[in-house]
Formats: sequence, structure tokens, C-alpha cells
Amino acid sequence: MIKLVLLRHGESQWNLENRFTGWHDIDLTDNGRIEASNAGRAIKEAGLTFDIAYTSVLKRAIRTLWNALDVLDLMWIPVVKSWRLNERHYGALQGLNKSETSRKYGEEQVLVWRRSYDTPPPVLEKDDERYPGTDRRYAELSEAEIPLSECLKDTVERFLPIWRDTIEPEIRKGRKVLIVAHGNSLRALVKYLDNISEEDIVGLNIPTGIPLVYELDDDLKPLGSYYLGDQEAIKQAVQAVAGQAKA
Amino acid sequence: MIKLVLLRHGESQWNLENRFTGWHDIDLTDNGRIEASNAGRAIKEAGLTFDIAYTSVLKRAIRTLWNALDVLDLMWIPVVKSWRLNERHYGALQGLNKSETSRKYGEEQVLVWRRSYDTPPPVLEKDDERYPGTDRRYAELSEAEIPLSECLKDTVERFLPIWRDTIEPEIRKGRKVLIVAHGNSLRALVKYLDNISEEDIVGLNIPTGIPLVYELDDDLKPLGSYYLGDQEAIKQAVQAVAGQAKA
Repeated sequence: MIKLVLLRHGESQWNLENRFTGWHDIDLTDNGRIEASNAGRAIKEAGLTFDIAYTSVLKRAIRTLWNALDVLDLMWIPVVKSWRLNERHYGALQGLNKSETSRKYGEEQVLVWRRSYDTPPPVLEKDDERYPGTDRRYAELSEAEIPLSECLKDTVERFLPIWRDTIEPEIRKGRKVLIVAHGNSLRALVKYLDNISEEDIVGLNIPTGIPLVYELDDDLKPLGSYYLGDQEAIKQAVQAVAGQAKA
Repeated sequence: MIKLVLLRHGESQWNLENRFTGWHDIDLTDNGRIEASNAGRAIKEAGLTFDIAYTSVLKRAIRTLWNALDVLDLMWIPVVKSWRLNERHYGALQGLNKSETSRKYGEEQVLVWRRSYDTPPPVLEKDDERYPGTDRRYAELSEAEIPLSECLKDTVERFLPIWRDTIEPEIRKGRKVLIVAHGNSLRALVKYLDNISEEDIVGLNIPTGIPLVYELDDDLKPLGSYYLGDQEAIKQAVQAVAGQAKA
């Protein structure tokens, strides 16, 4: 049986400040770093190991991966970093406080931006300092690939190519894979793996720093999935993510 | 003008204990971690940046790279890890104290093992727990590629393929390259770049944690090279490396 492990980065400074983060490259908090190391320990205790890891080009995910690999004594495995695993781009909302935005636009509108499948938040202008096209790490993207804002549908569409072209073939070769990414890039994968509808995926929340194990058959169809760790604490963490945009 | 930066890992626990390390995967000391961050700061102050980094599969080099990338805000760049950048394999001497070994075999013999170009230290047996063939990270090497012991000539021969086939082409594409490796894998490169004789390379010492900048012309021929940082402190660090095997 194939085991694939997904891990959302630990708490970032902007998770703590309850701000829309998207592609902003904010770092982990001290707590987030501890979460990352704890995730490594939970994986180790479960007896899992890896041959290769995938992550985004954002430091909150990379540092989470580094801390986990350190605990696992796997610093030597290959790591592939790709913008396709980045968090959903939050457009002109990036940097804004979630509660303030709810007070300004109404909870209902913000819930649409946060959780509708195909309605993106307001777009960035290209002369906005937040526009990714001026960031060296995205220099090899075509202009069409550089988002001005993304709904989850957009994130799914730019995530799936790396899954199909790169990660899936590695798993089929027998490689044990760890993916450390973000709330929405991981929802994109979970939607694909579990064939979740556009309606249902928006209600699915992935907590920070808790390893999510997928057991797959030889066709990479899920046989089941579970979080590693204290199940009651995990339930609370999932609910906390859902409650973030209360005004 | 092309700038290539080489960096030997910071102080490891076995540097501190004056033991032959080779492929043993010992970690940095706290001081070594600080050296690595300081190296990052020196590179930053020199206004240098990178598009890609190369390192070994040994954690003292990987952690040095991580700390430097962290300071440089370049955690997102691609990192290639290869056994070809590993330290010289020290054969049956791995783990032994350098001074004790000198007392046992004589300073002259140890100096031959440490510094002769083509005399390897005593070989490991394949049933030795230090034999790399049982380590998962070397699973893709052929049996002929797995060393039982290496002289510097052996290290040069297994290092040069990654330089010629992988690193050089990246530099020719205009990519700015950082290489974080080990005393002897870096000597292998310096020998090649500066066309140093087999006699002279054995007297060349590279200190830990100090960035070495090579300025190259379009044919990747060196125009010059220099260490970043306090030149007097660097001179002392170079001499300290040379004095390690006094009995």
C-alpha cells in the first residue's frame, strides 16, 4: 500500500494576525516552528519515511519542511520547490485583516471570497507592489501564469500539472512522497484525490502542522486518509480554521 | 563578470573533537550554525545573490546552506544535493581522533593520509557499519561508485562529473551559483579551476564558514578569487586547518 503524506505549514505571523496571506512570503511564528518539528515527530513515530519532498516557494512551507526533515533525519532527500504548490493568491485582499474585511464588505461577501469555488477576490493591478511579476522567484512564469487573484478553481488548475506530470510519476516509481504546502493548494489535491465536488470542497478545512496520511492503491486511488496525532485536538484545529473570518 | 561562491560548512561536532569525519553525517556545533549565518550575512553585505545552490548529502553542509539561504532571504531557490559534493571518504580512519591517530601511526604517516594526493587511507571492509553501501541515501550508486576510502585524487574524479555536466552548464546559462560543500570536495574544485598541481593542492587549506568568491570570465577561467570578511581572521583560520594533525 502506498502512503502519501500531506502537511500544511505551521502557524505563520499572518495566521496569528488573522490576515489574508496568499503569496505574501511571511515567515512562521515560533509556535509555527514548533508545530513543524512536532509534525516531524508524529511522522517519525508513525514509522513513515520519504524519498522526496515537494513544497512551494514560500518560506512558511519551506521552513515547515526543513524542520520536519531535520527531526526525521532526512535533510539529505531531494526537495522540489514549485510556485504551483503556493497558497491560493488572494488578489487585492492580501495583507488585509480577515475580521476587518468582514466588517467592511460583510461576512457573506468575505465567505464567498474565502470559500466559493469559482469567485476570485478582487484582482491586483500590475503596478501594485504585491504583483508577483516583479518577484525574481516567478521570473520563469509566463504573464498568463502570474495570478492577479485566484479562486480555488484557479488554484486547482495550476496545481494539477505538477501533480500529474511530476509527483504522480514519482509515486508510481515507488518513491515515498511528502508534500508540504498550504491550506488551498492541499485542498486542491484533496479535491482531486477524493473526487470531492465543487460544493463540498469549500467546506473542507485542513489544520496547520498536522500530517495528513493518504493510503493509496496501485492506481493511486485513495483507500482512506487520516491525520497523525491527538484526534480531539485535530478536530478543534479544523474548526478553528473554519471560524477565522467571523467579523 | 561571473561570480561563483564556494562555502565550506561551519564547524561540526567532529571538527571540534578533531576526529576524521569523511562521510559520517555529523551535525554542526552551535558555533558552526553561527558561522553559517555569518557567512550568509557576509554574502549579503557583498551584494551577492544566487539562482541555484549545490550541496552534499551531509547535514553539516546542508544546514550551513539552509542558514545562509535563510539570512539571504533565498530559501526559495532550487537546491541540488549530491553525494559527489560529499567530503572525501576517510576509509577506516573515519571516527578516529586525528591526534591519537598521529601518535599511533606517526605524524608523517597521518600527514600522508591527510595530504598526499594519491595515497588513500586504509579501506573499510564492506561489513563495517561505516560502509556507505548500506545507507539509503547512496542506494542509487553503483557498487564501484561507493568508496571504501578516498585519496584527494579519488574525490577529484567523482566530483568533476557534477561540475562539468551540471554546474558548469548552469553557470553558462547565466545562473548565479552557490556551492556549499566540504574541505576536500572544494579543494577538488579549486584544483580544477586554478589548475593547481597535485603537489601544490595538498598544501591548500580552506577554512570553515568563510565564503570564497571566484570571479570567472566567459570561458569560466578564473580572473581572481578572494574570501569575504576580515582578512586577518581568515589567515588564522587557514593556518588552524593546517595544524589539526599535530600529535
